[in-house]
Parts: sequence; structure tokens; C-alpha cells
Amino acid sequence: MKHSPHTRHSGKLHRYLPLKTGHLALDFALILVPAAFLVRYLSGSAVWIFVAAALGIIPLAASLGKATEDLSAKLGEKLGGLLNATMGNATELIIAFFALREGHQAVVKASLSGSIIGNVLLVLGTSVWVGGIGRQKQTFDRRQVSASVTMLFIAVIALVMPAVYALSVHGHVSTRTQALDRFSLWTSGVLIVLYACGLLFQIRNREVPLPSEEANGPDEPSWIPIVSLIVATVLIAVLSDLLVNQISAAQHALGLSSMFVGVVVVATVGNAAEHSTAILMAYKNKMDLSLSICIGSSVQIALFVAPVLVFASFLLGNPMQLVFSPLEIAGIALAVLILEMIVNDGETVWFEGAELIAAYLILGIAFYLVPE
Amino acid sequence: MKHSPHTRHSGKLHRYLPLKTGHLALDFALILVPAAFLVRYLSGSAVWIFVAAALGIIPLAASLGKATEDLSAKLGEKLGGLLNATMGNATELIIAFFALREGHQAVVKASLSGSIIGNVLLVLGTSVWVGGIGRQKQTFDRRQVSASVTMLFIAVIALVMPAVYALSVHGHVSTRTQALDRFSLWTSGVLIVLYACGLLFQIRNREVPLPSEEANGPDEPSWIPIVSLIVATVLIAVLSDLLVNQISAAQHALGLSSMFVGVVVVATVGNAAEHSTAILMAYKNKMDLSLSICIGSSVQIALFVAPVLVFASFLLGNPMQLVFSPLEIAGIALAVLILEMIVNDGETVWFEGAELIAAYLILGIAFYLVPE
Amino acid sequence: MKHSPHTRHSGKLHRYLPLKTGHLALDFALILVPAAFLVRYLSGSAVWIFVAAALGIIPLAASLGKATEDLSAKLGEKLGGLLNATMGNATELIIAFFALREGHQAVVKASLSGSIIGNVLLVLGTSVWVGGIGRQKQTFDRRQVSASVTMLFIAVIALVMPAVYALSVHGHVSTRTQALDRFSLWTSGVLIVLYACGLLFQIRNREVPLPSEEANGPDEPSWIPIVSLIVATVLIAVLSDLLVNQISAAQHALGLSSMFVGVVVVATVGNAAEHSTAILMAYKNKMDLSLSICIGSSVQIALFVAPVLVFASFLLGNPMQLVFSPLEIAGIALAVLILEMIVNDGETVWFEGAELIAAYLILGIAFYLVPE
Repeated sequence: MKHSPHTRHSGKLHRYLPLKTGHLALDFALILVPAAFLVRYLSGSAVWIFVAAALGIIPLAASLGKATEDLSAKLGEKLGGLLNATMGNATELIIAFFALREGHQAVVKASLSGSIIGNVLLVLGTSVWVGGIGRQKQTFDRRQVSASVTMLFIAVIALVMPAVYALSVHGHVSTRTQALDRFSLWTSGVLIVLYACGLLFQIRNREVPLPSEEANGPDEPSWIPIVSLIVATVLIAVLSDLLVNQISAAQHALGLSSMFVGVVVVATVGNAAEHSTAILMAYKNKMDLSLSICIGSSVQIALFVAPVLVFASFLLGNPMQLVFSPLEIAGIALAVLILEMIVNDGETVWFEGAELIAAYLILGIAFYLVPE
Repeated sequence: MKHSPHTRHSGKLHRYLPLKTGHLALDFALILVPAAFLVRYLSGSAVWIFVAAALGIIPLAASLGKATEDLSAKLGEKLGGLLNATMGNATELIIAFFALREGHQAVVKASLSGSIIGNVLLVLGTSVWVGGIGRQKQTFDRRQVSASVTMLFIAVIALVMPAVYALSVHGHVSTRTQALDRFSLWTSGVLIVLYACGLLFQIRNREVPLPSEEANGPDEPSWIPIVSLIVATVLIAVLSDLLVNQISAAQHALGLSSMFVGVVVVATVGNAAEHSTAILMAYKNKMDLSLSICIGSSVQIALFVAPVLVFASFLLGNPMQLVFSPLEIAGIALAVLILEMIVNDGETVWFEGAELIAAYLILGIAFYLVPE
Repeated sequence: MKHSPHTRHSGKLHRYLPLKTGHLALDFALILVPAAFLVRYLSGSAVWIFVAAALGIIPLAASLGKATEDLSAKLGEKLGGLLNATMGNATELIIAFFALREGHQAVVKASLSGSIIGNVLLVLGTSVWVGGIGRQKQTFDRRQVSASVTMLFIAVIALVMPAVYALSVHGHVSTRTQALDRFSLWTSGVLIVLYACGLLFQIRNREVPLPSEEANGPDEPSWIPIVSLIVATVLIAVLSDLLVNQISAAQHALGLSSMFVGVVVVATVGNAAEHSTAILMAYKNKMDLSLSICIGSSVQIALFVAPVLVFASFLLGNPMQLVFSPLEIAGIALAVLILEMIVNDGETVWFEGAELIAAYLILGIAFYLVPE
């Protein structure tokens, strides 16, 4: 779920440009997109192409998020909610799709883990810290948040059980069997159905009105966000293809593990714009919004993006099973449990932000030290 | 703990009949008891005998529950509480006793796990869902429930520690050593003493009065529930013997694992009547009662039935250790943690029911896929 | 953090004596200090010297605690808080330092685990039980306690991740690799920085005033606590050296495992005086103080003492890694989770004390049964 109710820089001409991101700095960063193509044709270095493609995707992800949000506002609550719920993490979905096609299952899983852990610990931690400075405490609606955390815990169950199954029946998690194939597909089905139920519940029980999109006057033509959506999606797909093709070579050249590339590089590239919004909202003391971005995005990745990728991987003939590595599972489970402890009183203080960041650092050390 | 404060069908003659279940449909289902014996003598098929015995036990379990409840009401708060606390899951205890005698340790453990997981996730989930439909939310006394959830977590500790011990000292959980024998017996002692303390606490601190048994007028003679109790117990014992003798053959014929037979078949047979009551209470918006049936029954199984079975197994010379399989332990631990998340705000909504059911489905998939 | 606002026995002469403990019984117990030296020179038995040194340390730990507390009161809130935060578990730090020098890594780790588990389960459980007898319930400030429990959970993360790393990368936890060395040092750094942030947060946000030290009139000269501090530290160091030198021989003679010596003996010796204060405060219905002693002490051990010992061990050339045994990790994690369940409603009843003690007994059985 993307939100960026920033005060926007407007202008007669600018209003009709597609790919607006809603952030001035990110609008300028769109220059990185042609730059990435330039690097692609001028340079033969895998590392440079990899970095250029990654940087190019960041502003495009923001454009896609903005277009999704604007179109949602025009489509009304129900259709808009559905669009947000499916396209909210489209960038990650696209990158992961290309990575799966090339057989980078480990990188994709790591990027899913990294997104969840990063949102829940690093982004939320920074938000709570930044928001808490100079304030006695910040409050939010405990009930909405609590429901999301429980959904994340269902995802934890969906990650723990296949791994325990694999460990206790097969003796290790790196095997691939028919039973685990079925386990992955059926569990993915359960998760997607639950995600749909959650959407239904949210639409029916919405007490808090959606943030009004006052900045988007009625003067913007409807076709602008549609064009933005299409153009951004296509460009992200092209750059993702570029990025994924260089993963192996770049990893090798930089001495990075699949785990680290997934957890840090891919997860950051897909979520950077969103992160800045969450932190800004916390700074403005809109904790409900900040929490809903961080936790909502994690829920979407765990209960929608991950199952969709499992299904897609089987269709692509490169099956990805829901069996994550023990480090990833432990990391996600611990992140969700500490999240529950932090939010279950309906208020945060800056020190709780520090606690979340400390948890992220410890997990980060583990992922960094994993050998290839 | 059994409750069935339904409106009852009364009649002059019927009032003097033993084995009443308090549900009209279950009263008629008592016909399955003689049917089971008929099948036993007419059929040579293990599967049919197994199924008939299982079906026959279901209404008898309801009769036993009703008789326990009626007798408790007559005995007054203290003695009645004690009777409820020891006989509340008598059916399961009896089936398990016969199964232990025949050496079906794995089935017994699986039935214990299955009962706990089934009560906490499937029955409670269905109750919360059914109760929540058409209601904004349902509320209950958070404190009573919270105390029970903590007791379940003690049971989780009692399951996790022996398994971690076995894994870290012996390298696997399937071994049997003197140390694990001691561990099982001592831990069972701790659990039973804690269960007794809990009973004492409940009797002393009862704030909520027991549901008044208005349906049982003072006109029912005292001997009726006593006769029912004895007759039901004897019949359940005979059918359990029948059931257990066919386990191996039926398993083989149907291609089911011990895990599945225990978790699904035995656990359902012993608790079916109780389950319907919990769901009915939730439908009537009596969430305190519904939760107390689901969680109270799990507490009784974990802290009373399981330890009693451990002691009994040693006396029978077929020791059952408190070392459960990793899948069972993970399942119970995750079930208790999600239960804590759901109930710790003192209210439920239908979507939380869906979350519990989703968790049950994921665990169910794991148990289903376990090879023999 | 040490507190002992007891009513004190005062006397003109006594007031000028160093090493006062603030408890009459413990003052007399100081006779055990010279007794320990006597045993050392008269007896050749490792067991007797071990026991005498252990007993001698108990009253000295109380003296050190009292001196730290008195000096803190004189130094004012900030410097005093810093002194308390670093010297609060000085006895354990000293014993552990000598044990590390002799290469008893397993004993030191077990004493850290034992202190955390003992404080959180046994001492707090006894406090809650004793305090709850004859009272309907006891209440406390949920927020302060909750923040400490979250800090303990960060420590759980810091213990779980290296173990999962070791298990999944190396296959077992008993290995020593360069990666685990780095993991231990970096994580220790994160923990200490978080501990410092916590201190800062506590000083800035203190709402509850410190317990006034009414018993220490302004007539006590400033040099008394300083002398006490120095003398107690030196004597504890000498006795610790004695204690540690006999560990191997005493273990052998008594047939105790390193695990048991660490978890029970060392952990008890270092914390006995503190424990009695926590229980006394609960008895007086000062639950905030009782909880802050039990949980605060655990936080200090997990986030300050343990990391300092990791750094010290590397300087001593006998590196201690943050890789604990699976039993210790499971024990600490389960203890913190049940603590969270017990305290998160801001009130306790005697039965919750019984639950904590039951949890301690189950963990104790596991540690007792571990073979050497």
C-alpha cells in the first residue's frame, strides 16, 4: 500500500507529465532511467550495469506507486482498494518474476524475507525513532495494527511449518520433494484466500477514512495515471531484466552472497520510496499512517506477493518452494514477535525505535556473514 | 470442562432415561452404539469396525459430558469443580488408555496434539467466525482467558524442553533414555500440581457465577447422572477397545499415518459434542462460555490428561515419554502464540476466526503430508 | 540495579563500619568471609573450599550492592544511575571474569543463562506468589515493565541468531569460527549501545521518582560507601579466584555438570541478596520495585554483563562466543515469552507466581539432567 500525501510541486505543464513520483527529488532521479540504458550500451562491466539498473528502478517504483495511488483515488473505495492491494508491491513482484525465470530462487526468497524484516524493523524502527524525538510518546489505533500483526504471524506459521516438516521428515531444508511442492502450493492458496478475506474485512469495517487526496485536484485527466502505470511497469520490467541478468556476475565480482543481494539490494530497491514516506509520516506525528505503510506492506508481501510468486514459479517451470532458510525463518519470526511487543500498547517512544533498529542490526549481521 | 446449557426437550418418561446428551440429535445418535456392536459381530472388515466404533463413541462422549455436568451441579461448587476438572475429557482419557495398552504411543501423542490444536484453532476459529457474522465485534473477560492461555504456554514449555534436550543431547527425538523417562515423569508431576493450583485459584477467585442449570429442574433424581456416568464410561471403554484393536489394520487399509489418525480421527471423536456447544455459544454471543469451553478443554488435556497418561503408560509397562515430534511441538507452540495475539485485547471479530482457521489449515496440511 | 530500602538497624559505632549489607542477618553472615579463608588454609578438600568460597561471596555481594546504592544516592541521578547500571551486577561480573581466565566458558555462559532465567522465573515467581497471598491482585505500571521485557527480547534475538547461524551454516553449535567471532563481537557492540540508549531514555523519561533513601541520614560520611565498594570488590575477587580454581575438582567430586554449576550455583551466589529484596518488596505490595529488581537485573546481565564478558574474553585470549547451547536459548526465550504474557496486563495474582515457578522447575529439570 503506497501513500504519499506530500505537498506537491505543481505547474501547468508538469501536471500533464506521466511518471510523476510526488517527490521533487525522485522526479529528478528519473534521469537515472535513461542513464541505466546508457550504461548498458556503453559499459561491459556487470557491476556497473547492475548498479545502474538498481538505481534506475528506485524512482520508477515511486512513479508506479504514485500512479497506483492516484488511480485508486479515482476508482473509488472498493476497486481502488483492490488495485492498491494487488499493485502495491508491483515493483518487487516484477523483479522477482524475472529473477525466478532465471532460476534465482534463493535471491527471490531472500528479497521477500528482506522486505518483511526491513519494513518491520528498519523502516518502522527509523520511523518510530524519528517520530519520537522531542515527543513524550506517539499514539495510534492499536486494533488496526494488531490485526495486521496477527496476519504476519499467520505468514510465520506458513514459513515455520514447511521448514519443520522438511527438517523432521527429510533431515534438511535444501531438498525438493513432491510433498513439499504440494505443501507450498496448498499453503500459498490458504494465504491468498486469507489475504482476500482481510481485504473484505478492511473494506467493510473501515472506521478511519482514507487520507483525502487534496493535492490531486480534479483537473488532472484520468488518463495520466493510467499511462504512468503502464509506462512505469514496462520500464521496471526492462530494467529488472537487465538487473537480474547481471546478478550472478555482479555477485561474483563484488563477493556478495545471494542472501545479502536479496535481503539488502533487491529489498531496498523495491521499497525505497515507500520507506521515505513512512518516516516522513512518523515525523509529522501521523503514526497510524506510518505504521499502516510499514506493516501493511509486509502483510502484502507475505500473504500476496510470496504466494503469487510460488504459483508463478510453478507455471514458469522453475518451482520455488515455501521452504526458507532457518536464518530467514528465525529472522521473520523474531521480527514479528518484537513488533507485537512494541505495538500492543498503542503507543511508541523513540527508544522503541532504537530497539527495532538494534534487532535489525543483529539480523543484518547474520545475513552479512552467511557464506555463499 | 463441559457445558451444554441448551434448551432441552423434556418429557415425563425421557426424564428418567440415562445417557441423555442434552442434544436431541445426539440422543437419537445413541442408536450408533448398538449399531457398532452389530457391525463388530457381522463384519470382518477392520475399516468398518473402526468407523462404527468411532461413530458410536461420539454420542456416548456427549452423554458422559452431560452426566458429569449434571452431577457437578448437584455436588456443589467445590466437589463439582473437581469432578468437572477430572472427568471433563474422560472419553479421550479412556481411548488413550486402551491405545497405550496396545503400544500406540504415536497415535496417543498425536491425539493429544490434535485435541489441543483443534480446540484452539479449528473450534475456536469456527466459533469466532460464526459468532462474528453480522456483529461489529464480540467481547469477553480478557483476564480469565489470559490466565488459561498462560497455562497452555506452560504446557508448551513442557513440550519444548524435553524435545530440545533430546535433540541437543541425543541428536534426535525418537530415542528413549532413562534421562528422558525421568524428565517425562517429573515434568508430568509439575504439570498436575500446577493444574491443581489452577483449580484452587479458580474456585477461590470465581467472580463470574457458574451458568445456572435452569433446565435441570430439581425433579430429576440424583441417581440418573450417576448411572449415566457409569454406563457411558463402560460403553466408551468397550468401544475404545474395539476402536484401538482395529487401528493398525484400518490405518493400513486406508493408507493413513499414525499422525493423521491421532490428530484428526481420535481427537475429533473425543470432542465432537463439545465442539458443537462452543460454536453454538458463540452464535448466541456468549463468548466467555465459548472461549472457556475451547481453551479450558485444551488446558485440561495439556495439564491433566497428558500427564495422567504419562503416569499410566509407565504403570502399564508401555512408557510414553513427553517427547513429541517437532511438527506437533511447532504446531502447538504456534497455536498458543496466535491464540494469545487474538484474545489479548478482550474482543474478537469474524476475520480473527478466519485467521485461526487459516492457521489450522496450514498445520493440517503438514500433518496430512507426514509419511508413515 | 540494587535496592534495599529496608528499615535498618542503626547504631553509633555500626554506622562507621564498612561492608554493611543493610540486612541484619547478612551483616552477621559476613563472618563467612574469614571462615572461607580459614577453610582454604586448613582443608585440602576442593568441595569444602568451593562451598566456603561460595557462601562467603553471598554477604559480600550484598555489601557491594548496598555500597553501590548508597554511593549512587550521593552522586545524584545521572552519575548515580550510571554507577548502578554498571556495578549493579558487579559480583557476577567478577566471578565470571575469573572463570573466563581459567577457560570455564561453559560455566560462565550457564551462569548468565541461569541468572536471567532465575530472576525472571524463580525470583519473580516467588515474589508474585508471596505478594499475592491474601490479596485479590497486585498492580504495577505496565509501561515501564513492558519496555524492559522488550529489551530482554532483543537479548533473545542476540542469542537465537548466532545459534541458528552456527546450526545452519556449520551444522552444530559447538564449533568456533572466525565468522562466529565477528558475530559475537558485533552483536555485543549492538547490545551495549542499546543498553546505553536505554539508560539515557530512563534518565530523561523518569516519571516515578527514585525510592527516597530515608534510612541513610545525611550523617554517614561519604567515604564509607567508597571504602565498602573497594573492600567488597577486592574480597569478592579473591574469593572468586578461590571458587573458580576449585570448580573442576568440585564438579568432579560432586558429579555435577558445568551447566548445573553455572545455572544454579554461580547464578545463586551472585544474586541471593537481591532476590530476598525483590520478594520482600512484593510482600509489602511494592510490585513496581519488585518487578524492576527482577527484570532490571536480567536486562543488565543480558545487555551489559554478557557483552562486557565477550569483549573481556577476547582480550584475555580465551574467547567466549555468544553461541549458547540450545537448552539455554530455548529456556531464555520461553522465560521471556511467559514473562510477557504474565505482565502485559499490569497486574499479577498468586497463581501467576505458581505458573512462573512451574516454568522454572521444568527448565531446572532439563538443566539437571544434562550429562557432562
